[in-house]
Amino acid sequence: MSELFQKLQPYLDRAFALGSACTLFNWDQYSAPKESIENTAKIIGILSGEQYRALINDQVKELLPRLSTEDAQKELSFHEKAIVRLLNKQYDKLSLIPPEEYSAYSALLAQAYPIWEAAKNNNDYASYAPTLEKIIEYSKKFAAYAQKDGQTLYDAALDDYEEGFTTQILDDFFGRLRTALAPLVKAIRQKQDVINVRCLQKFYPADTQKEFCHFLAQYIGFDFNRGLMSESEHPFTTNLHNHDVRFTNHYYENKLDSAIFSAIHEAGHGLYEQGIDDDITMTLAGGGTSMGMHESQSRFYENNVGRSLEFWKPIYGKLVQLYPQQLSDVSLEEFYKAINASCPSLIRTEADELTYPFHIMIRYEIEKAIFAGEVTVDELPALWNKKYEEYLGITPQNDTEGILQDMHWSGGSFGYFPSYAIGSAIAAQIYHHLETVMPVKTCLEEGNLMPIRDYLKEHIHRFGCCKTTQEILTDMTGEGFNPEYYIQYLTEKYSRLYELR
Amino acid sequence: MSELFQKLQPYLDRAFALGSACTLFNWDQYSAPKESIENTAKIIGILSGEQYRALINDQVKELLPRLSTEDAQKELSFHEKAIVRLLNKQYDKLSLIPPEEYSAYSALLAQAYPIWEAAKNNNDYASYAPTLEKIIEYSKKFAAYAQKDGQTLYDAALDDYEEGFTTQILDDFFGRLRTALAPLVKAIRQKQDVINVRCLQKFYPADTQKEFCHFLAQYIGFDFNRGLMSESEHPFTTNLHNHDVRFTNHYYENKLDSAIFSAIHEAGHGLYEQGIDDDITMTLAGGGTSMGMHESQSRFYENNVGRSLEFWKPIYGKLVQLYPQQLSDVSLEEFYKAINASCPSLIRTEADELTYPFHIMIRYEIEKAIFAGEVTVDELPALWNKKYEEYLGITPQNDTEGILQDMHWSGGSFGYFPSYAIGSAIAAQIYHHLETVMPVKTCLEEGNLMPIRDYLKEHIHRFGCCKTTQEILTDMTGEGFNPEYYIQYLTEKYSRLYELR
Repeated sequence: MSELFQKLQPYLDRAFALGSACTLFNWDQYSAPKESIENTAKIIGILSGEQYRALINDQVKELLPRLSTEDAQKELSFHEKAIVRLLNKQYDKLSLIPPEEYSAYSALLAQAYPIWEAAKNNNDYASYAPTLEKIIEYSKKFAAYAQKDGQTLYDAALDDYEEGFTTQILDDFFGRLRTALAPLVKAIRQKQDVINVRCLQKFYPADTQKEFCHFLAQYIGFDFNRGLMSESEHPFTTNLHNHDVRFTNHYYENKLDSAIFSAIHEAGHGLYEQGIDDDITMTLAGGGTSMGMHESQSRFYENNVGRSLEFWKPIYGKLVQLYPQQLSDVSLEEFYKAINASCPSLIRTEADELTYPFHIMIRYEIEKAIFAGEVTVDELPALWNKKYEEYLGITPQNDTEGILQDMHWSGGSFGYFPSYAIGSAIAAQIYHHLETVMPVKTCLEEGNLMPIRDYLKEHIHRFGCCKTTQEILTDMTGEGFNPEYYIQYLTEKYSRLYELR
Repeated sequence: MSELFQKLQPYLDRAFALGSACTLFNWDQYSAPKESIENTAKIIGILSGEQYRALINDQVKELLPRLSTEDAQKELSFHEKAIVRLLNKQYDKLSLIPPEEYSAYSALLAQAYPIWEAAKNNNDYASYAPTLEKIIEYSKKFAAYAQKDGQTLYDAALDDYEEGFTTQILDDFFGRLRTALAPLVKAIRQKQDVINVRCLQKFYPADTQKEFCHFLAQYIGFDFNRGLMSESEHPFTTNLHNHDVRFTNHYYENKLDSAIFSAIHEAGHGLYEQGIDDDITMTLAGGGTSMGMHESQSRFYENNVGRSLEFWKPIYGKLVQLYPQQLSDVSLEEFYKAINASCPSLIRTEADELTYPFHIMIRYEIEKAIFAGEVTVDELPALWNKKYEEYLGITPQNDTEGILQDMHWSGGSFGYFPSYAIGSAIAAQIYHHLETVMPVKTCLEEGNLMPIRDYLKEHIHRFGCCKTTQEILTDMTGEGFNPEYYIQYLTEKYSRLYELR
């Protein structure tokens, strides 16, 4: 380790440990006593403040430029270089924001979640609008601080989640998706009788679902010695380090597919975190490189792998054994079709693979309009509903199933949504690439999923944030982000499923 | 708040938040993934270091004496005064230890637990002895730093857990216990056929036990909106603040009484923590005032209340309903006797109420000998076995059921054990006092436990550490610690149970 870098280490360690404590408190809140929140929020507030101060201080301010000189960089290892790059980015971003604005914003966000939640539960957008307006003001202000030459304001917001993915790139991306997929969505609306999903809506006791989901996570390669599966209202994945990766699931007894695909999805995120090198876990570089790349891993397993016929061939029998009464008269083929049924719907998190990108497109366009100042907070619900009608041919009957459905904006996450669609596109690109280096379908049919996990670990996971999304894609597949594979995949799959040719 | 105290507040807040993070990590480790420990230990190490530095630093060093002057004290509230007193005590203790010794000791302790655990599992005292020897060296050294005029070295160690309880007081205490109770223990050994405990050893499915334990905790007043019950190998209680108090339990399907009395015991600890004032929770004064007082609350509920006939009158029917096959032919009287059976045994944590103090007496005498340099580490197992033979008439067949059974010494906790016996004695003293202010037995027979909890809250719990154990006892009962009530209680109860008069 370079001597100069060694001086930085205690600050990094402290920030990491404090960040881990916040992560654990957040994880814990799903099982914490009901009335603990108010006091515990104070504790989390103090710890986050300390985490901020561990990095944003005079000592780090003095060390960072010295570590960034050409000479100093020569002394650094590959990992250390990445850490200095990431710290510079984080430092620039945070130090541009006046501390008092950062505190006021944090306090605003702490209040915003319950306000949003109540508004959603009561279908009362008006009660949330003033808070949303303030969050938008701050988000635009902070984006302006970070905005570089040639960037739009929204570009600066996007940069937080997906480095290098500008409005220009995303306009093109979503444009191509729309052109290719909108006719497909429309055609499928006329053929809803081709697939019958009733077999998934029988009564499926939760305990057995849990057992099967545990099996599935392990089956795709999730290591339960270094991770665990728990429960919460909305499934999510979190981690303390590469030896402690946790995901949750939620079991609906009349929707068999919900927990199954959540488990595969979250375990996909988990594989990424478990696959990160021991050398960089517990450092700034020890997480997934971007939201989109993370989402690509979960969606790769959930959709490209998990919703394929090949995946189910060796294991569908196990599921039938667990639910003989419910499934013994359902063929593998019928099951496969049911888990891939497509139908425009209002709720993003429940959308099928084909209509999903339209939900993202709508949010992307609305966020762009917000950052361009083209729409007021009061006009948002109507704009939202108009776009659902335009893209999916359906209209929310109220704001709860419309603009209030997602929590993201209440947490200040503007520019986050596009990563979901980017992730799906990367997943398809990776799947296409994998087929050129190994017999993927045969692996799946033989129940041999380890070569897939190991390849992803070797080319993606282990690097953490030491490579960018584009670097990983280029080094692995020989080309950068290319959404054509995604379009091709969805077009072929759904044309076949709905007998459109 | 005084201006000067306000300057101290950020340091207190920071130390508290960091301590809470460590508490949560410790709580979490019981469900954390198997292989997470090594990385997570590093995080905990950093957080504890930060916690130390949050209090032991030049700013606090400068503020504390200024806050301790007579003039400054006049400006402080009752709570603030207590916090300054506690901080002074903690500061003195920690600042006397050279930082490098403190670090080396922390590192030693971090290794010691698994070494002790392995030694216990393999009945291999020799493999643990060198580590124990080092821990003893440090403990004696640190006690010497803290030792005041007129104190023995062991007095200084005792002071950490039980302020004011010196060797002199404890010699007298244990002497009286021995004189009064040893003949009783001996007499009961000859009358083992009086009580039959087989009714507790049938098959009792764990799920139902869990349900009943949850009921019991609630029944004595534990608030599940501000707390929760979980599972671990050994039951324990922990808390983040008065709105987040957690205890664990362990279910043995052929020992009905184990989980029942653990639940009542831990919920008793929980009531203490939940009863602490909102004004002082999340401060240095926001915990139980001493180990002994804490243990008095758990044992009061477990033994004085929970093992009384009156307690079971209104609820035994519920237990029979849950286990009709196992208990419908067992009368309340038989059940009451079974849960109070006394028989000398080797393991402290499984001991009955009457023989329990002898387990503590043995440890007390051995610790005293260790601190007086009268026994070497190699001689400890033989001394242990000799004392078990002497006091309880039984001899461990190996060190696993002898000197290796407790984890306390591996964590450097010398001087801790006496608190268990002090707690039992205080519990009896409190019970005796309670009977002078309310019809305790009638409350129990009517299933009306809230007046008891509320009285304890009013006179003990709410003060946290703002009063010492002796102050609480004196203010509440009109006299200081008096073990006679304990001796009287055990003598009467067990003479009656075993028909000795």
